[in-house]
Amino acid sequence: MNANDMHPRMAAGSRLPPIQGIDHTEPRGVLRRLELPEHITNVPSMTFSRDGSYLRVVEGAENRVTDDSVLRDRIAHALDAFAAQLPPAALGMAFVETAGGVLSPTMSGSLQADAYRPFRLPAVLVGDSNLGGISTTLSSYEALRIRGFDVPCVVLFDNPKYQNHDVIERCVDKDTRVFTIPAPPPPPPAAQTASSPTPSPDDLANMSAYYAAADPHAARVVHHLLRTHAARLERLNHLATAADTRLWWPFTQHAATKAPTVIDSAHGDDFVVFDASRQSTRALFDACASWWTQAVGHGNPRLARAAARAAGRYGHVIFPEAVHEPAMRLAERLVASPGRGWASRVFYSDDGSTATEVALKMAFKRVVVSQGLVKPRLDVIGIEGAYHGDTIGAMSASNPNVYNDKVDWYTGRGVWLAPPTLVFKDGAYRVRIPDAVLCDADPANAAAVAATTFASRDAVFDKSRDNSALAAVYRAHIASVLDAAEREGRVFGALMLEPVLLGAGGMLWVDPLFQRELIRAVRTRKPDAPVPVIYDEVFVGMYRLGFPSAGASLLHETPDIACYAKCLTGIVPLAVTLASEHIFEAFLAPTKVDALLHGHSFTAHPVGCEVALESLDMLEELHNARVHTPGSDAASGSAASAASDNQAGAAQSTAITSVWDSAMLDRIAALPCVQGVVALGTVLAIELAASQQGYASTAAAKIVQSLRAGDGDAVFARPLGNVLYLMATHETPAARIGDVLGRVHSLLCDDADSDRAA
Amino acid sequence: MNANDMHPRMAAGSRLPPIQGIDHTEPRGVLRRLELPEHITNVPSMTFSRDGSYLRVVEGAENRVTDDSVLRDRIAHALDAFAAQLPPAALGMAFVETAGGVLSPTMSGSLQADAYRPFRLPAVLVGDSNLGGISTTLSSYEALRIRGFDVPCVVLFDNPKYQNHDVIERCVDKDTRVFTIPAPPPPPPAAQTASSPTPSPDDLANMSAYYAAADPHAARVVHHLLRTHAARLERLNHLATAADTRLWWPFTQHAATKAPTVIDSAHGDDFVVFDASRQSTRALFDACASWWTQAVGHGNPRLARAAARAAGRYGHVIFPEAVHEPAMRLAERLVASPGRGWASRVFYSDDGSTATEVALKMAFKRVVVSQGLVKPRLDVIGIEGAYHGDTIGAMSASNPNVYNDKVDWYTGRGVWLAPPTLVFKDGAYRVRIPDAVLCDADPANAAAVAATTFASRDAVFDKSRDNSALAAVYRAHIASVLDAAEREGRVFGALMLEPVLLGAGGMLWVDPLFQRELIRAVRTRKPDAPVPVIYDEVFVGMYRLGFPSAGASLLHETPDIACYAKCLTGIVPLAVTLASEHIFEAFLAPTKVDALLHGHSFTAHPVGCEVALESLDMLEELHNARVHTPGSDAASGSAASAASDNQAGAAQSTAITSVWDSAMLDRIAALPCVQGVVALGTVLAIELAASQQGYASTAAAKIVQSLRAGDGDAVFARPLGNVLYLMATHETPAARIGDVLGRVHSLLCDDADSDRAA
Repeated sequence: MNANDMHPRMAAGSRLPPIQGIDHTEPRGVLRRLELPEHITNVPSMTFSRDGSYLRVVEGAENRVTDDSVLRDRIAHALDAFAAQLPPAALGMAFVETAGGVLSPTMSGSLQADAYRPFRLPAVLVGDSNLGGISTTLSSYEALRIRGFDVPCVVLFDNPKYQNHDVIERCVDKDTRVFTIPAPPPPPPAAQTASSPTPSPDDLANMSAYYAAADPHAARVVHHLLRTHAARLERLNHLATAADTRLWWPFTQHAATKAPTVIDSAHGDDFVVFDASRQSTRALFDACASWWTQAVGHGNPRLARAAARAAGRYGHVIFPEAVHEPAMRLAERLVASPGRGWASRVFYSDDGSTATEVALKMAFKRVVVSQGLVKPRLDVIGIEGAYHGDTIGAMSASNPNVYNDKVDWYTGRGVWLAPPTLVFKDGAYRVRIPDAVLCDADPANAAAVAATTFASRDAVFDKSRDNSALAAVYRAHIASVLDAAEREGRVFGALMLEPVLLGAGGMLWVDPLFQRELIRAVRTRKPDAPVPVIYDEVFVGMYRLGFPSAGASLLHETPDIACYAKCLTGIVPLAVTLASEHIFEAFLAPTKVDALLHGHSFTAHPVGCEVALESLDMLEELHNARVHTPGSDAASGSAASAASDNQAGAAQSTAITSVWDSAMLDRIAALPCVQGVVALGTVLAIELAASQQGYASTAAAKIVQSLRAGDGDAVFARPLGNVLYLMATHETPAARIGDVLGRVHSLLCDDADSDRAA
Repeated sequence: MNANDMHPRMAAGSRLPPIQGIDHTEPRGVLRRLELPEHITNVPSMTFSRDGSYLRVVEGAENRVTDDSVLRDRIAHALDAFAAQLPPAALGMAFVETAGGVLSPTMSGSLQADAYRPFRLPAVLVGDSNLGGISTTLSSYEALRIRGFDVPCVVLFDNPKYQNHDVIERCVDKDTRVFTIPAPPPPPPAAQTASSPTPSPDDLANMSAYYAAADPHAARVVHHLLRTHAARLERLNHLATAADTRLWWPFTQHAATKAPTVIDSAHGDDFVVFDASRQSTRALFDACASWWTQAVGHGNPRLARAAARAAGRYGHVIFPEAVHEPAMRLAERLVASPGRGWASRVFYSDDGSTATEVALKMAFKRVVVSQGLVKPRLDVIGIEGAYHGDTIGAMSASNPNVYNDKVDWYTGRGVWLAPPTLVFKDGAYRVRIPDAVLCDADPANAAAVAATTFASRDAVFDKSRDNSALAAVYRAHIASVLDAAEREGRVFGALMLEPVLLGAGGMLWVDPLFQRELIRAVRTRKPDAPVPVIYDEVFVGMYRLGFPSAGASLLHETPDIACYAKCLTGIVPLAVTLASEHIFEAFLAPTKVDALLHGHSFTAHPVGCEVALESLDMLEELHNARVHTPGSDAASGSAASAASDNQAGAAQSTAITSVWDSAMLDRIAALPCVQGVVALGTVLAIELAASQQGYASTAAAKIVQSLRAGDGDAVFARPLGNVLYLMATHETPAARIGDVLGRVHSLLCDDADSDRAA
């Protein structure tokens, strides 16, 4: 790529060797004609036209390409063809030559550096040795780097007058080298070139002599590129082997780890991983959304620019009793979006775990003040299977389980109710009610409600269910549990729940009616000083399920406190705890010790806030585009899509949608090895049948393993017990969704076959 | 600033109105000649020469400026002079016109956008409407934005052929507007201009007509700039008033907050804050180093670029059983630097609090495995006044105090020893030994050691003190405390301490001999299965005290586990817990439940790791530059500098230094209102005398308040009990250190005077 392509003569009709015409203005000509070492050659048929907008991949076929993905397909095809014709074990070197500057637009209107970014080919930046060339070269360099490109070298003509290369060398990152090439002789007078389009014999002779002198310089560049490539391969191999000697992975039993996934880069939905066995990279669909953090795709240039913008303006600045624009704008935006109608304050912290600890401190203080308690030891009310983070306080708000059992300071401080859940199976949404819930019901009622099903997602979330027999069953059970706990002397400090979907708890779809009844029960027990309700929306919020607040939109109740993180930024740790003004007021007192004594060094760090604002912009744009696109929830006639069909008459922004193709989900849900599917927003969970002891969890792990293999359609998922879950972003193309589901469906069929055979 | 200044004709001799010559190549000429509204005018005497390297601030004085700070002083002076001559209450508009591209070098070799960054003037980017101009304009735009500039508008000629403005408009951030100005008539033939240096009458007439037509377009730009300025002021005023209605600040009693500090931006050592009373901004030395996170200065372009580089390459990618280059390189670097000689593993988390919780989980597991314990309830051994973070687990590792007393789930789980501390006062380093320590000593010994003093910092840290009488006193006390605790049935899971300096505990310099004896006592009690030693170096590590690991370098003992955060990145949350291989091995087992079950979504996020690597590069460069500069620890003959003098013969990289001018510290320490000073690395703590009940803490708060006032020499510090602490970065110029200390000294003198008068 070149820093400043204002040289029509050079760019016009440029071809790979042999070159046409003579280039006096650019070091590219020198590079292009160089006799490359054996097996190292340009891709002969890949050339861009002057305006960079069409691609001559196959000789003579000069199709204008207005779609970046078509452009990329052709480049990929040409590179594959080039690689295929190399002798076995030979090393090849292909140059994809672009025209225009790094940020010149392609025919689609995207910028070149963005359009070619998925390849992340190492960029040879052609610098400018003239007056003003330092600025154009360095700003082009930065534009490439902030898009994640490696730039192994900058090449420019030697210009003794301006010595641009000196400054450029000093300013580029240390992994970039700057090469100069002797400048060519001056071009012939304009009059002469105007009269004859072909170079004069003198001109040709001059240039031949020049090229002969310049060749060794060009060869240095090529050898540097070869060394860089070798070093890159070495680094990638090193990553694969060294990781397990220096890293200590989270949630990982190192005694059981296999070869790590070496992630060379990421873009959109894909990781680009290094495959040591083939010594090359391949794409892998990130179906775990990198621990559920991705909503707008990897390597997003808007987020990268936002991060740099705030880093350049502030770096980091202290927050207590201070204010800066990104923090204030984000706070106002959050209060108006997930906090609409109830929240007034935003407390910043670093991650979901700290956000929930802050939420607990908030709730407890409110209870102590409003109920006039003196040093109580408060308990939470929660849902069995809850997960709120891994710091001791957040852990202690979850029910005892095999994971926290081994943590010395863990103390389960609460009462947790086993939740009724929902899955889609055999054309209907089916409620599964735990025995404990049914036990507390009138036996006649219990039998009637046990087989509750719904025809649509919308019916599940319908508020009219408040008047159902099942609601009465839930109410009776909740009252019974809370009464018993209070008789034991427990004092409650908070109801904390993950609205609708338990993430780490197994991607369980909790019956929203049950959560709503629980909220109401808690609020009506002490109407004058109710226990605060905390929504832990770290996973489900920020449009993961299609709404800023899953709880507010799907449970039809607002909380007193709510936590957000993950998709809030997508790239750096940042969390918020939103609170209503009555929670905030509980901390107002004459002394500092009554304040919320919690803080982290990087509280409200400008980089995170600015990225969050940009991410929210994108999420809202995508959300609006989706809800205003008819038929976005896939084909009609499918049971899984019934929800959005029913919703057609309602306000579109409240439509409960899924990005997962519903026709395909019907087929998957119909498989005998599938107990049910859950598709909400960008999340899909497939519960595998536990047909024999211990089978279930290994089945999910086995499929996860199989999904990772392959090229082009490989999928990186992580198992969660007997659940195979997949997560998309809001930018995942429908075709890609189809590919992923197709792959999953076929593997599930294979698996069922082999299981029957066994 | 302009995107691409390759137009020598325009740039040569450009002047503010009336312009000399005629400009056919750039919209600037049109802007420059515009009749501005009343009281809105250019700064008439501020002009840059062609190469952008010298400044004609005063007519006729064309001094070449090779020092950016001189360049900035002159610009500041010219702007002040401009403002001073405005009529009262008039609004003025000054254009600082630069020559060359945004990243063209100044005479000092720095890049223009970096050199002018401290002003952060809103930039009018002059775009390029020619072929290739989209790329140069957009890359220049990005270069400005990643350095934190606001760019209210891009101005370029209307060019119907290329329509660059369409693409540019689509690609700039939404707070930037793109303006076009009609293109001027074509320049006269080259032959004509060559023969006569002055324009022909025809040429002048053409241009006059053109300018008349273009003026309304230029006026739109000026009005936009006025609107932008008004909107910016409005936003700043809004920040000042809205903060306290939406934000919930950490560690802040909102009932007692005053007007917040409105931080418009930050650069180097300074915040640029908005002063609502004057409706303008001023600089404020960030002496709290933004909660101790700053080591290389605010708004650092290298860190901003590093953040963007990783964001562009990855965004964020999942970490368990995966590896990416920034995480791996950082891990290797940390193991080789603070972890040298003992650490083999790096566990990533988000902040100091999570890092210490991880450390505790690591230590506890090791004790459970090595001592064969079954579900013990482990205690920590610590130092009284310890602070390890605000999550419940981290809090519970600190002794009970007024702050955690109000946190419902806090449980102090440990034994904490009151530490002997040191201050410099009256020419010597004096040890203060708590009564509890002396009580356990042989009375003869106690009297002898009670008045221990040292002549130098180095003497305090000298290992030969192991053989002193004081060491024996410490040993006896430590044994007595631990014996008593074990008799009570306590089982210890970790010794956790902040080496040398307790930060939140009051900037107390703990006697390193005491900490060393404590470590040895803990390790020798159960030699086969010793309790692990954790260094919480979140505050003191990463060169804050001058070393990668304060504990390893100053206590002369290595830990088993150590935590780093804060200066690790300086701009975004990232923390690491380093561990030795024997700690890691305690978690190796056949089942996952024995793994370290802790993780955060953004574990080892590439942005943080890449920024940390860049920050480490800078810290090491600065550290090496400092330790290899003779006399860097200020003048000889000063008691406070004796340490480095004594150290002259030793390896320089282990020199114990302070960035705070020692002669000035001597004067401060000699003041009657000062009980002692502590100066280690970039930290300075001044302990104020508690001459009357309650006086001390209000004195610190009073001085902190006074320091914030003023212009040019204002200092933003935060009080900590009766301690006034100041923190510098490794980039703070010596002159600035002198200014800050001078201000502090004079305020302390004033305060003492007023106290005597009262």
